[in-house]
Amino acid sequence: MKSYKEMSKEELLNEKAELEKRIEEYKAMNLSLNMTRGKPASNQLDLSNELYTNLSAGGFKSEDGSDTRNYGVPTGLPEVKQLFADVLKTSPDKIYVGNGSSLNLMFDSIMRAMVFGEHDSPKPWSQVEGRKWLCPVPGYDRHFKVTETCGFELIAVPLKEDGPDMDIVEELVKDPLVLGMWNVPCYTNPDGYVYSEEVCRRLASMKTAAPDFRLYWDNAYCVHHLYNDEAQQGSIPDILGLCEEAGNPSRVYEFASTSKITFASAGISCIASNEENIKRAIKLMGVQTIGANKVNQLAHIRMLPNLDALKKHMSKHADIIRPKFELTLEILERELAGTEAATWHKPQGGYFISVFTVPGTAKAVVAKCNELGVAFTPAGATYPYGNDPDDSNIRVAPSFPSLEDINKAVEVFAVCVKLSAVEKFLSI
Amino acid sequence: MKSYKEMSKEELLNEKAELEKRIEEYKAMNLSLNMTRGKPASNQLDLSNELYTNLSAGGFKSEDGSDTRNYGVPTGLPEVKQLFADVLKTSPDKIYVGNGSSLNLMFDSIMRAMVFGEHDSPKPWSQVEGRKWLCPVPGYDRHFKVTETCGFELIAVPLKEDGPDMDIVEELVKDPLVLGMWNVPCYTNPDGYVYSEEVCRRLASMKTAAPDFRLYWDNAYCVHHLYNDEAQQGSIPDILGLCEEAGNPSRVYEFASTSKITFASAGISCIASNEENIKRAIKLMGVQTIGANKVNQLAHIRMLPNLDALKKHMSKHADIIRPKFELTLEILERELAGTEAATWHKPQGGYFISVFTVPGTAKAVVAKCNELGVAFTPAGATYPYGNDPDDSNIRVAPSFPSLEDINKAVEVFAVCVKLSAVEKFLSI
Repeated sequence: MKSYKEMSKEELLNEKAELEKRIEEYKAMNLSLNMTRGKPASNQLDLSNELYTNLSAGGFKSEDGSDTRNYGVPTGLPEVKQLFADVLKTSPDKIYVGNGSSLNLMFDSIMRAMVFGEHDSPKPWSQVEGRKWLCPVPGYDRHFKVTETCGFELIAVPLKEDGPDMDIVEELVKDPLVLGMWNVPCYTNPDGYVYSEEVCRRLASMKTAAPDFRLYWDNAYCVHHLYNDEAQQGSIPDILGLCEEAGNPSRVYEFASTSKITFASAGISCIASNEENIKRAIKLMGVQTIGANKVNQLAHIRMLPNLDALKKHMSKHADIIRPKFELTLEILERELAGTEAATWHKPQGGYFISVFTVPGTAKAVVAKCNELGVAFTPAGATYPYGNDPDDSNIRVAPSFPSLEDINKAVEVFAVCVKLSAVEKFLSI
Repeated sequence: MKSYKEMSKEELLNEKAELEKRIEEYKAMNLSLNMTRGKPASNQLDLSNELYTNLSAGGFKSEDGSDTRNYGVPTGLPEVKQLFADVLKTSPDKIYVGNGSSLNLMFDSIMRAMVFGEHDSPKPWSQVEGRKWLCPVPGYDRHFKVTETCGFELIAVPLKEDGPDMDIVEELVKDPLVLGMWNVPCYTNPDGYVYSEEVCRRLASMKTAAPDFRLYWDNAYCVHHLYNDEAQQGSIPDILGLCEEAGNPSRVYEFASTSKITFASAGISCIASNEENIKRAIKLMGVQTIGANKVNQLAHIRMLPNLDALKKHMSKHADIIRPKFELTLEILERELAGTEAATWHKPQGGYFISVFTVPGTAKAVVAKCNELGVAFTPAGATYPYGNDPDDSNIRVAPSFPSLEDINKAVEVFAVCVKLSAVEKFLSI
């Protein structure tokens, strides 16, 4: 297809008329489709249906002989720490096991710094007037909301194919008010990019003005590959090791969870950090809670006893989710290739496809889709304060809907992207 | 037995010699017994062993049709809210359902006030220099530790049979730096007292200088009766209703959990408060977490679908735990009655028996027991900063050990109480 940019006004008007005809057809279908949330599909959840069924028959003792039903072992079962350590390429002594929501561990971690400071903080973060936080964009709205709520000014940093633009990051951290940075290093949400080892090394070794600067390293998708061929799989070095190597051992809090491995609402999660950070966190968490659900930890380790079992389980997820990604990409390609109405990256894992429309049209696209009964994540959601300065990025979440629904929803989406682009070009 | 107070020096020396002989006998037994923790016994936990077994067979849908395995319904399943509301004599709209640890909900609630303030706070609590917190004593060490960690000065308030000494409390809350108060209203930890309705009304209606004063109302043992006869059961009025009635609707956060109903490490919990408080809390918890484990909520409500089922389940706990309390009390009575070496209250529920030794001897008693291989909660643990000014209170936890172990451990304990008393009287 010819690029819209190269079309004459007449050509654009013709294209507009054709697209409007298609829109009318969609309208008549009374669609009700939802592409908003990065939720696992029902048949993905089915993979873990028997998580608890044989728990009682197997007894409730963990490998160390403790009764998981009772109080005790507040930092997590040793065998679960080992599994998370293997997933994160680190060691079990650096791990604390939490309940299902890793977001909860992140929020609590920042709250501890707010009230008590980090071990290397000149003062608690709540007392740092004008505190700032770096946010690679596009990124995850719930990350941004945590630091926004805690009174940080959010500083957007462009994300490139190999990670955040490090020249910019290295400049920004010269500001002592910059206290931390969000990262989804493997299959970034929503672009699906994978941080390069060089970017990881620069993040680990860069000089920060704040002595208590922290990387929040949300390794949410580190085993969430779409392809079983390892050469195609994203892989991230052990960031804790890199920070230690670089002489900044306390720089990073790493997180992971089984929300998209077993049950989104009922998984287990972890926080990993160096000895000084994790000891301090564990001490305060020891005041906060009697510990996370250990019976659930036991259930998880029985079903996924080691990294191999976990990988096999994840390949079943991939088999379900991959066709949805491929269908989405196929429709985008079919409808949009050559038009220059949008660009996107083909992810090798994660839960999203990130589409960049013609600047100034993303909100219009989402509004048009909504009018046709097809819900997409609000434009701007992937930027701090919900404000995409280019009004261009839209996060597409193909995991939850059926192939049939995706087929229709993404087609509607593509047509709305094109119509909005045509309207934009006609208005210039 | 004759009171030690009335004994001559010679009588005391004779008693001492006899007690020391018994101590030697215990020493020879090489005991290793533990009476420290308010843990459910293994056969109590067994009552819930099939909590998860049939979950998959019954499907994972909640009553509202939502899939409990996936994201969504962040404040808790409606049917679980209803159950907690029935337990707390309040309404489901006031409830947020959390994970297993209600302590976690308390800590987080105080942390929110620390960083963001309450809706009626002049400023966030972290900015209130010299902030104070009322602690009825003896009380629960982990409560005290939360407010100590958050920088509150802990003010001890004497606990009486009908609750905290309200004349003192009403005086103390005239200080605008007093921001809150711990309460375990039903079967206080460790005395097992039950707040009277009058005390509850005075707490609800008293005039506090701080506009954002909060009662932390830990209804941890509200269904944990030792006797099935309702006339013998402790009962607390709906504190949320009383506060509303008194024109102080935002005064209280109430908590409960199933830690000692199902599994200590894997239950569900709740926070309950009025509309203004709970909406504000839910908004911030909506930033903090994707919500608590809903599959576990479903498992709980399937096993305990209503208050009746819950009561029946609790009576099975009572059948296991009651003989342990009765044996403990019987030994205390047999060994100590008339000696005036100790006093205690016979609780109708909860998890503890609180023993007051001759002032100045509690630490010595615990040390003597430890030497004989019998572990008790450190003396002083039931007071702020671990400091019992009278060195008198010892918390006895009879739930976890077997009857056989209790038989020996409490006898050892009583002998140590007596020996310490005799030594005390001889030294005066």
